[in-house]
Amino acid sequence: MRPHVFINIAASIDGRISDERRKQIRISCEEDMLRVDKLRAESDAIMVGIGTVLADNPKLTVRNTALKEERTRTGKAPNPIRVVVDSRARTPPNANVLSKEAKTLIAVSESADKVKLASLKNRAEVFIAGKNRVDLRTLLEHLYSLGVRRLMVEGGARLNYGLISEGLVDEIMIYYGGIIIADGPAIVDGPSFKPPVPVELSEVKQLGKGVLAIWKCTNKL
Amino acid sequence: MRPHVFINIAASIDGRISDERRKQIRISCEEDMLRVDKLRAESDAIMVGIGTVLADNPKLTVRNTALKEERTRTGKAPNPIRVVVDSRARTPPNANVLSKEAKTLIAVSESADKVKLASLKNRAEVFIAGKNRVDLRTLLEHLYSLGVRRLMVEGGARLNYGLISEGLVDEIMIYYGGIIIADGPAIVDGPSFKPPVPVELSEVKQLGKGVLAIWKCTNKL
Repeated sequence: MRPHVFINIAASIDGRISDERRKQIRISCEEDMLRVDKLRAESDAIMVGIGTVLADNPKLTVRNTALKEERTRTGKAPNPIRVVVDSRARTPPNANVLSKEAKTLIAVSESADKVKLASLKNRAEVFIAGKNRVDLRTLLEHLYSLGVRRLMVEGGARLNYGLISEGLVDEIMIYYGGIIIADGPAIVDGPSFKPPVPVELSEVKQLGKGVLAIWKCTNKL
Repeated sequence: MRPHVFINIAASIDGRISDERRKQIRISCEEDMLRVDKLRAESDAIMVGIGTVLADNPKLTVRNTALKEERTRTGKAPNPIRVVVDSRARTPPNANVLSKEAKTLIAVSESADKVKLASLKNRAEVFIAGKNRVDLRTLLEHLYSLGVRRLMVEGGARLNYGLISEGLVDEIMIYYGGIIIADGPAIVDGPSFKPPVPVELSEVKQLGKGVLAIWKCTNKL
């Protein structure tokens, strides 16, 4: 058993999530940021890859106070569990994702450096799965066993690729903001899928100044 | 003076137009192919880059007979002029874009091979602009002088990049088909725009099984 897994990502109209220097670029509008905050508040856990932690240093907490209060009213922690997929235990000890406001689980592989692991264990729960790379299915099953039923994936491109290629994604929500970036990290990063992975449109609308499209994965396992 | 220039392109939801081998992948649905055919019929000229000619060997003619008849009824040729941006005159003499059904203009740079040029001149009109690369603005002005008021650009990624970076595009129409490709040629190919090029949403809707989004360029010159 695994949680319902959905990817949420903001991209330029040409499908880039930042520029070639990995510089963070504002893509979302206010309306979209509120939508994302709600999605976080409705999730049991939020997952990112180590690349996103190193590039953007996100906190991954719910911003809106009312949304946090709503969670506590229903017996939940104010913030969802944060999950970092970090095969080699490279999460910096001072990363925002390790802040005290929320629980954090760092998923590493068996080949992760033991000294780094020991240091991370003081700040987060550590889960080991997979020889050289985190075994994503095992990780999802572990999250399910912890009570995670709804998992939000907030990037980056390599984690998205890994999850999609293993059929572990139920939905992909893409917000296309009104900019063209050209070269830079894409929505998914990895060798072409052959054949391409099919998705089914479930919703599309204008949101703020951009487009929100929600696709259901049909290759899911 | 230049024509109204619009790019039309079909991409996967992650912004790829083919896979890493440049293999052509079916992205559009029937509804979108009909839309594209209408766009062609309503245009005075259709432009592609040499990369697209070499990879896909497109004919770039109007498919629907009624649409062609409608053009001739209004005093036009059955098909728009085909324009190939081909700095080094690499268009193969047997390329479909040189078929007899429509006029073709090959735009080359001053550095194009003279023997190849002579061969192309038997099959198409040749226009020389720019030292090593086709000067796109000069080409657009030439097309305007030929009576072209509405120019449709059908790729590929490098031509899109060149036109956008010079502020020569009025509209970008993107059809996102329900597939994920991952690595492969993108909608625009070139170094990141710094800052990103702004576009404004003018329309978005479901079309067939995909999403059609139309963006207006605000950086146009």
